[in-house]
Amino acid sequence: MYGLIGKMRASRGQRDAVMDLLRASTGALPGCLSYIIATDPADADAIWVTEVWTDQASHKASLQLPEVQAAIAKARAFIAGFEFQVETHPVGGFGLPDGKTG
Amino acid sequence: MYGLIGKMRASRGQRDAVMDLLRASTGALPGCLSYIIATDPADADAIWVTEVWTDQASHKASLQLPEVQAAIAKARAFIAGFEFQVETHPVGGFGLPDGKTG
Repeated sequence: MYGLIGKMRASRGQRDAVMDLLRASTGALPGCLSYIIATDPADADAIWVTEVWTDQASHKASLQLPEVQAAIAKARAFIAGFEFQVETHPVGGFGLPDGKTG
Repeated sequence: MYGLIGKMRASRGQRDAVMDLLRASTGALPGCLSYIIATDPADADAIWVTEVWTDQASHKASLQLPEVQAAIAKARAFIAGFEFQVETHPVGGFGLPDGKTG
């Protein structure tokens, strides 16, 4: 599996607008196992996104989907920057679809 | 919802031992919606854990469960430290149990 943990910063006051766009574009994308959007109680403009994909290729392919491209285009105006991003290799745990947890 | 994103560092060469202990103790704990354990391709001794709970109280209560206490006691000898931890407020996305996604 392929994972991403990232923190983005919305333009002042635009956090909820960015989150609405992220949520609207996040459905059952091919290869997406988990995509969780969270606020940060210590940082009012921050958005944390944690993702699990079957593999890196699925994540990369998702960025080319029309609905994802449209969301990125809309959200760009409200995003001040990306502060943190790490790639991970999820190996298991709890809460992933059957057969993916270990 | 209540979330945690954390990075721990295993003692040199003990990463997989720690991950095995984490995986063994991570089942359907009350209030746990997601608990994903991942390696870091850029850091051989690191373990990333991303968690989603119904609320902070459920997470706190889980730390008192006998099976979790036993796992913590066993793992402690193999953990060098905790390098990063942030609390989040997950609001939705994809892959959480029905009714928890937005």
